Amino acid sequence: MKLAITGKGGVGKTTLTVLLARALAKSYSVTVVDADPCMNLALALGIPQDKLKSITPLSDQQDIIHDRVGEGMIRLNPQVDDLADKVSLVHEGIRLLIMGTIVKGGGGCACPANVLLQGFLSHLMLTDKDVVILDMEAGIEHLGRSTIMGVDAALIVVEPGRRSLEVAKEIRRLADDLKIKKTFFIANKQNDPQKPLGDYFDPEDLLGVIPNNEAIQASDVQGTPLDIPAELEVVLNNLVEKLENKITNC
Amino acid sequence: MKLAITGKGGVGKTTLTVLLARALAKSYSVTVVDADPCMNLALALGIPQDKLKSITPLSDQQDIIHDRVGEGMIRLNPQVDDLADKVSLVHEGIRLLIMGTIVKGGGGCACPANVLLQGFLSHLMLTDKDVVILDMEAGIEHLGRSTIMGVDAALIVVEPGRRSLEVAKEIRRLADDLKIKKTFFIANKQNDPQKPLGDYFDPEDLLGVIPNNEAIQASDVQGTPLDIPAELEVVLNNLVEKLENKITNC
Repeated sequence: MKLAITGKGGVGKTTLTVLLARALAKSYSVTVVDADPCMNLALALGIPQDKLKSITPLSDQQDIIHDRVGEGMIRLNPQVDDLADKVSLVHEGIRLLIMGTIVKGGGGCACPANVLLQGFLSHLMLTDKDVVILDMEAGIEHLGRSTIMGVDAALIVVEPGRRSLEVAKEIRRLADDLKIKKTFFIANKQNDPQKPLGDYFDPEDLLGVIPNNEAIQASDVQGTPLDIPAELEVVLNNLVEKLENKITNC
Repeated sequence: MKLAITGKGGVGKTTLTVLLARALAKSYSVTVVDADPCMNLALALGIPQDKLKSITPLSDQQDIIHDRVGEGMIRLNPQVDDLADKVSLVHEGIRLLIMGTIVKGGGGCACPANVLLQGFLSHLMLTDKDVVILDMEAGIEHLGRSTIMGVDAALIVVEPGRRSLEVAKEIRRLADDLKIKKTFFIANKQNDPQKPLGDYFDPEDLLGVIPNNEAIQASDVQGTPLDIPAELEVVLNNLVEKLENKITNC
């Protein structure tokens, strides 16, 4: 299954990507993709700088990707496809790919990198045991670019506050334009579980509610790897179960 | 003076834009520009929906803007230039312009809107009593597009946590590419005033520290206009004073 984590800036997309990846890695082969030019995902996964240097962003490997997209399907299993090890690394059981960033001020936008990622994703061949999670750029621009066209679901992260819900409304509208099969919501930093989606969306589409958590904040402040805090194990397992049911039945 | 408010998603760019605008409006004629396709600035300013409908985003007024850029300088004073009232509205003493959004999923990126805004900004003629504050899109992509080339200063908002500081580092690097004269920092949601910039930046470049504030959070949760909370009046006045000194002396 291919999932895109989207939402307003700062709602916790990277955090949710890591937590979901760790929860899903118990039963799936998980690949996460940093599709944000700000590239914070490796930091949250706790990948050391020297290890990170061993991979090159997709945007710097245009020739390889173009060749392989031309040949047909791509697999992320290094036993059957050598591309996996060329474009990604594995850290603590999770495979990481990086889309690429803005190299120079005035050097142009992230469209070329997004086009490459979209081509790569649309040629990925996944088994029932593969999950790819895309950590998207903040906001709505990637939807103008169709980067996530073809994912099984867009998971929109919201936090308490109208601004994140207004952005979520825009994301759902644009995702509908792209004919993305399903959009669900995750309410993050939510200590009051009453109506976290307000009157904006059907509560049926809410996958889970993640309360504010000090260990998650401390991981960012101290720059230490983000793990699932013990007190959130059950919440995340339930979220995964709900997601599996929704994806299988839609 | 022209200022661009930048930073990682969710650090408080829109919040700081509104607070700074209100603080500066005591002595200046202030125009704020929503340069984020997510367009949350009007909501934070408390502009009613029906009033908001009276203005059209710059991106939908290509012909007018192109014509006027071709004619030379643009002023934001409606007494000397009728363009001001065509492209903006005034609410509680603050003039608002909107760059524009992603109209359709798959409809393309925000480059055309950014190009138009950049042209508009570079032809703006300001007096000593005019301030333009740009509320930028989250992250670094606008720096690839040179949208804010020519501003007097980029104000980078950071929050506690490495991820926002890492993004700030990238923003400063790209701003240097664009030869932006000055970049300063504002530390937001910062209850511990010890070294909010860590070892990332010179503390001399820190304009101010804004503590976590319940009234600011409540304004977003309740969708009510964001005003300067009484307990932050002094902090914001000091920030404005420091900014004036830094801009005048650089």
